[in-house]
Amino acid sequence: MRIVVLAGGIGGARFLRGLQQAVPDADITVIGNTGDDIHLFGLKVCPDLDTVMYTLGGGINEEQGWGRADETFHLKEELGAYGVGPEWFGLGDRDFATHIVRTQMIGAGYPLSAVTEALCDRWQPGVRLIPMTDDRVETHVAVELDGERKVIHFQEYWVRLRASVAAEAVVPVGAEQAKPAPGVLEAIAEADVILFPPSNPIVSVGTILAVPGIREAIAEAGVPVVGLSPIVGDAPVRGMADKVLAAVGVESTATAVAEHYGSGLLDGWLVDTVDAACVPDVEAAGIRCRAVPLMMTDTEATARMAREALALAEEVRAV
Amino acid sequence: MRIVVLAGGIGGARFLRGLQQAVPDADITVIGNTGDDIHLFGLKVCPDLDTVMYTLGGGINEEQGWGRADETFHLKEELGAYGVGPEWFGLGDRDFATHIVRTQMIGAGYPLSAVTEALCDRWQPGVRLIPMTDDRVETHVAVELDGERKVIHFQEYWVRLRASVAAEAVVPVGAEQAKPAPGVLEAIAEADVILFPPSNPIVSVGTILAVPGIREAIAEAGVPVVGLSPIVGDAPVRGMADKVLAAVGVESTATAVAEHYGSGLLDGWLVDTVDAACVPDVEAAGIRCRAVPLMMTDTEATARMAREALALAEEVRAV
Repeated sequence: MRIVVLAGGIGGARFLRGLQQAVPDADITVIGNTGDDIHLFGLKVCPDLDTVMYTLGGGINEEQGWGRADETFHLKEELGAYGVGPEWFGLGDRDFATHIVRTQMIGAGYPLSAVTEALCDRWQPGVRLIPMTDDRVETHVAVELDGERKVIHFQEYWVRLRASVAAEAVVPVGAEQAKPAPGVLEAIAEADVILFPPSNPIVSVGTILAVPGIREAIAEAGVPVVGLSPIVGDAPVRGMADKVLAAVGVESTATAVAEHYGSGLLDGWLVDTVDAACVPDVEAAGIRCRAVPLMMTDTEATARMAREALALAEEVRAV
Repeated sequence: MRIVVLAGGIGGARFLRGLQQAVPDADITVIGNTGDDIHLFGLKVCPDLDTVMYTLGGGINEEQGWGRADETFHLKEELGAYGVGPEWFGLGDRDFATHIVRTQMIGAGYPLSAVTEALCDRWQPGVRLIPMTDDRVETHVAVELDGERKVIHFQEYWVRLRASVAAEAVVPVGAEQAKPAPGVLEAIAEADVILFPPSNPIVSVGTILAVPGIREAIAEAGVPVVGLSPIVGDAPVRGMADKVLAAVGVESTATAVAEHYGSGLLDGWLVDTVDAACVPDVEAAGIRCRAVPLMMTDTEATARMAREALALAEEVRAV
């Protein structure tokens, strides 16, 4: 079975680990979000790609969900002593190595997709991880700060401000001119099923879909497209998805997110059991819907979610 | 008293610490060797400048004489896991920060001299540290390796090969086209005394003198120029100076090194007490010479050496 998964960071990575346990023999291609990439200290940092790679490759800091296990922060401490920031972005000593290797390879002329493949040679994540694009896309967020309207990098919004102010707009800068990375459209065309994990629908999955050609390829693939709601009981399971949903006028409910993707894209949608009441509304929108437990408390629970998603996909296919 | 010191790495840095203790009120300008600079992992590394800065700024690893105290090597370990070398060059996590800040500033258009000043703002070494040049100079060494003649970077010769093969030639590539950094010639012209610490006469002091204008400025400064022999009892006190001396046809003796600098440049020369027999030979070459203990066993012993050098300078001046 060939499965394509559109993934952001922590939520996507954890879902993928459950999916691997649910279907160990599946051929999984992950299209990773690069909209939260950022240049820091002259280095290209790809937080979402790295979170997927470290999580599936056994190098993740399990508690925080991002960054490396057994990490130290001496380099960052020293940068601070030199007065060089940003201090709010926590790059560890081990993690720095990934960004140094990536930056050197990009400087040598390799596209990000080739660099990601090279990094995965070490981590062996058990999936094919492809960035959504080799082109530079950076999600920017418009906010009102100190009475002034400012446009800041997504990471500054997410990590420094902890989404503490309202996002007025979320713009994946560069997405319109971006091309899908080599292999992305081919993987979608050859997929048996396409999954949207409970990742952020705006700044993770939404950014991937903003690369021209990807949304169309998914809609036209002719295979079941099933998503899992990142909203449980009107609040994001983790992260601050509600803040960026508001910016695009989408309510923070499992139903609203399904409708935001739309029946033209989505064939099936899993909501949590606490949102069972949403099922008729989602189905009324033309999207087959089931209510099942959606808390990724451990890999076993996550594997059950993956099995439910694949079962729903088979239901869709059988129609 | 305005003192100019031409310094390499460990030997130069330790001598400077003694000099500071000997004459705490002196105004000391250090002209640092940059011939052993190397580009690693996309970063500009300046080992000699950093050794001086860390030693005088209190951040040095005292035992090894280079690199940072309380250092970890996680980043390097991870680079190794990615198969990215060289593994023989020991950049620590804390040390990396210096190279990242330097590389970013150079990328932003600052010359190395301005960058060095900015780094010293943090370290407060108590001297003015100026690189010999803002231009790129890299010392290369011609060797015979596996039956083949190869030209390798000085660091590869020194650190990877531990100078275990004979150097056939030592070439400060780029030196001929280099210009002294801003402040270098001015400091020399305003100096009351100029000192050559017991640094390597070829790859440290020699490289500085290879930048057109510096040797001439020293010779014409009209102030005492006094050096300390890095050779004690026919062997280098530390390091492998004998290997590179042989490459330029200079014997590994205190006398031969003094003659290599020459009476046109050097007014006074300190040799160790075990080399007291050299004194008449050095003086016959037109260089005033004294035999005093030259082992930098601790700062107090080093301060005594510095006082002897300054005393010899006064003798020269009185003539």
